[in-house]
Amino acid sequence: MRNIYSIGIDFGSNAVRVLVLNIMSGEVLASSSMGYGRANAGVYTSKKNVDVARQDVDDYIESLTRVFAKLKEHESLKGFDWRSVVGIGVDATGSTPIPITEQMIPLSNIPEFKDNLNAKAWMWKDHTSEAEAQQITRLAKEIRAGYLQRCGGKYSSEWFWAKVLHCANIDPEVYNAAFTWVEFSDYIPALLTGVTNANDIKRNKCAAGHKALFNDMWGGYPDTAFLYQLNPDLIKVRESLPQKTYAIDKVAGYLSSVWADKFGLCEGIPVAMGALDAHVGAIGSGVNQNTLVKIIGTSSCDIIVGDNSAQDIQGVSGVADDSVLPGYLGIEAGQSAVGDLFKWFVVELLGEDESIHTKLISSANRLKPGESGLLALDWNNGNRDVLSDSNLRGLIIGQSLHTKDYEVYRALLEATAFGAKKIIDQLETGGVAIDRIVCCGGIPQKNSLLMQIYADVFNRPVFIAESNETVAVGAAMAGALAYSSISNSDISLDALQKLCCKASPVKYEPNDVNVHSYEKLYEIYLKLHDAFGTMDGNVNLYSVMKQLIHIKNSIF
Amino acid sequence: MRNIYSIGIDFGSNAVRVLVLNIMSGEVLASSSMGYGRANAGVYTSKKNVDVARQDVDDYIESLTRVFAKLKEHESLKGFDWRSVVGIGVDATGSTPIPITEQMIPLSNIPEFKDNLNAKAWMWKDHTSEAEAQQITRLAKEIRAGYLQRCGGKYSSEWFWAKVLHCANIDPEVYNAAFTWVEFSDYIPALLTGVTNANDIKRNKCAAGHKALFNDMWGGYPDTAFLYQLNPDLIKVRESLPQKTYAIDKVAGYLSSVWADKFGLCEGIPVAMGALDAHVGAIGSGVNQNTLVKIIGTSSCDIIVGDNSAQDIQGVSGVADDSVLPGYLGIEAGQSAVGDLFKWFVVELLGEDESIHTKLISSANRLKPGESGLLALDWNNGNRDVLSDSNLRGLIIGQSLHTKDYEVYRALLEATAFGAKKIIDQLETGGVAIDRIVCCGGIPQKNSLLMQIYADVFNRPVFIAESNETVAVGAAMAGALAYSSISNSDISLDALQKLCCKASPVKYEPNDVNVHSYEKLYEIYLKLHDAFGTMDGNVNLYSVMKQLIHIKNSIF
Repeated sequence: MRNIYSIGIDFGSNAVRVLVLNIMSGEVLASSSMGYGRANAGVYTSKKNVDVARQDVDDYIESLTRVFAKLKEHESLKGFDWRSVVGIGVDATGSTPIPITEQMIPLSNIPEFKDNLNAKAWMWKDHTSEAEAQQITRLAKEIRAGYLQRCGGKYSSEWFWAKVLHCANIDPEVYNAAFTWVEFSDYIPALLTGVTNANDIKRNKCAAGHKALFNDMWGGYPDTAFLYQLNPDLIKVRESLPQKTYAIDKVAGYLSSVWADKFGLCEGIPVAMGALDAHVGAIGSGVNQNTLVKIIGTSSCDIIVGDNSAQDIQGVSGVADDSVLPGYLGIEAGQSAVGDLFKWFVVELLGEDESIHTKLISSANRLKPGESGLLALDWNNGNRDVLSDSNLRGLIIGQSLHTKDYEVYRALLEATAFGAKKIIDQLETGGVAIDRIVCCGGIPQKNSLLMQIYADVFNRPVFIAESNETVAVGAAMAGALAYSSISNSDISLDALQKLCCKASPVKYEPNDVNVHSYEKLYEIYLKLHDAFGTMDGNVNLYSVMKQLIHIKNSIF
Repeated sequence: MRNIYSIGIDFGSNAVRVLVLNIMSGEVLASSSMGYGRANAGVYTSKKNVDVARQDVDDYIESLTRVFAKLKEHESLKGFDWRSVVGIGVDATGSTPIPITEQMIPLSNIPEFKDNLNAKAWMWKDHTSEAEAQQITRLAKEIRAGYLQRCGGKYSSEWFWAKVLHCANIDPEVYNAAFTWVEFSDYIPALLTGVTNANDIKRNKCAAGHKALFNDMWGGYPDTAFLYQLNPDLIKVRESLPQKTYAIDKVAGYLSSVWADKFGLCEGIPVAMGALDAHVGAIGSGVNQNTLVKIIGTSSCDIIVGDNSAQDIQGVSGVADDSVLPGYLGIEAGQSAVGDLFKWFVVELLGEDESIHTKLISSANRLKPGESGLLALDWNNGNRDVLSDSNLRGLIIGQSLHTKDYEVYRALLEATAFGAKKIIDQLETGGVAIDRIVCCGGIPQKNSLLMQIYADVFNRPVFIAESNETVAVGAAMAGALAYSSISNSDISLDALQKLCCKASPVKYEPNDVNVHSYEKLYEIYLKLHDAFGTMDGNVNLYSVMKQLIHIKNSIF
């Protein structure tokens, strides 16, 4: 059989990566990335409001064009037959909605809005819509309780409707000029496949389900009566949205001649439905019904899928049909601060630069679990899961007059491990059987002590994703599925994962002695977790400091 | 009336100070101090055991001789008539017991023990006797519960019997060579007054009552049956101790010709009974039935006196008859770490040197109460009062990803203020009416932000003792009382305090807005205090983080 290839296009927060995947062997032939060229690594901010984070669609497109040109120069692609590329998959950050006209023109390309940040793409980490998010949560609690059950009990300022509503509230000119708002991860496939009317954009299940309250249970997007109560002007956008959304195994369309020429690819090859980058990364890291993928960076995003028996999973921030693997419930949970927590301690508290992490890790690595007598809660940025409460804060307990910086540092690493274990427990209680944990996202490769602590706290092996490009690999896998759906080949996602998501040579095994200590510390963590994080009643905490001292003393 | 003078001799941890006080005017004519010359600022330590802290009696005596010589050179004493000195008062650290022979020879002066640390003075902060302290506490709980009621429920490793028992356990040769053990604050008056037989040493009520379980209620020192159960060898020491002890208004004896010659003073002037330095310092700072004196250094020592109605004061570390002002119950409470807590944060956690306090104070001073969203417990070194529990540890709550070092620093200052307020509340509940608070001890003069926080948390003015020499002044006042008791003059302690303990020009007034914020924060402190520090039951802490966020948000 001849080798055929799929191309994955991964639009991250600050750069786009393009990767060529051999569908038959699972081998990555080559990949290239290109940073966004405008503003500050692509992000437009405002001196007046630290919550603003916008991007320019032209920046996306220019970077995509440039990265393709760069890729073609790649050593491994000398003599490559670009006609053997049979599909394209795309992922992007989200919720990153873009206001566009009916003719598919981003408002930022209209001269009168050229310098208006509200006309640009509203990046996922834009937090200007907090008031609107709260308004949506309040109204849903009142009249559409079901909406909140699938998003951890609280609508986020990072999500679609909060952003659209905020624009309607603060910039009617931009809002009125927009025919609709389209997710970044839907805009790119529509662009590549030559969609010329916004009514024809296909919307992906992943972004719609996790960010825009789409669910077939209640007939798709939120109903007009609900949106009307938020702001009558939302009806216009609601009416621009389709009834149906699609998972990544469906074809968004076929590569237009314009883009085929630009890329040097065959016109008409299928472009898969887009999806959010984290979810696609989970696919590229081998997520399945028993494999939890943890993407650990500034915060963490934990992704797994479930079958229908997992329908009643409680207290995780996102549950949406087909949002990760088609045919399964996509389940997303996460911690509000992981890398950010360690960075806070180093930069804000110690006043050091980040180079000191290495030194702290080295000192902390010499400690045994429990030896510092410290315990921390990982809530400096609130708790996303399983409490879904941003009005929580950090706690460190057990300090003596001899407590050192590296002891607190280790306690913070451990706190994120305990928070992660609480999520695992919650998923298992909800019927998801996890027998494999794969970590990726930047921090796992940099902090081996953290990964060993995770293995010890979870009491199971922790695998590190082999590739740093799991997101682009996942996107290319989607491209392969799109090809499969229109050809006679029977390429399954399962088979693709077996080919592409190889076990990493780096793997952390739990250490029995540490596991035992951490079991005791996790019990104390849970006690504090429940005492400060739940209303469920009264907890007796008298033993907490005694136990920490006892564990410390029993180390030697 | 001619001016007459008293001399105060104050033996501190690392130096001795001698001061000349005009009894008629309350004026301090001059004072000089002299550091101990041996070992490390007078303290012998052991590389093998960080708990060891011993001193040499010869070092005390040499320093005393030298400081007198230095004092005589003092500018203000040119032409001074030393025959106008009519009394001497002495204080010393304690419990600092010294093993001596029946002939009053310190064992460290016997050649065979020359280099044996156990033959020296066991300094108050020597912590080698922790096991023995626990043994004493256990046995008292079992068979002499009354003993513990007067010392906060727990016998300390810093105290007389623990140290004597430890020596009996670990160094029988030294122990057997000792006829008795004498408190530093009793040894010096005995020495100055020419006592030649250890049976004739008068023992002071202050050290005996606060450190050696002396109380007339149970017939003086602990009974032999009790001591026998600890170690039969203790009986020997018990039998060397007198039935009666004396307060500072009594005469220990009369200055011997040897010491009169050395000092150039009149032979036969009265030397007052000694007392512990903190208690004498409280006298010099104006302690009375309504005035609480807080001596704030590495830890805090809070001293006040009560009448018989205050007999049932619970949960403070020391209550002893006549131990401060004769005729009153001396009441001592304290916090295990104050200056030490701030030093921990700066030195151990931030890894800075202590010069950075000034910068942190300056930044912390710009914060409003509650603005950081933080709250801390001041328990890094356990809690002396009112919980009397060394198995407690620190806690900091409310950290965000933006929490700065100076915010934590301020939270630690506030934590000590809340801990101090809890002691005040406890004293008032026990029937002591406090209407004036005077702070001294080093930290108050150096940290004005801390004192403002105390005023705001206590919601009353906080006075700073005018003099840095309140301990030596208090000792000189005792010398004046000794003179009074043998002459026709009717110098009362009350009158002396009015003369000598002037209101400081530095005084901190509570600020109404701050008082209001701190009332709310203190409520949360109490909630955490009770939750982690008492067995009394279950506390609901769900509101704690919410309230801290609410208070923070309501500042602006």
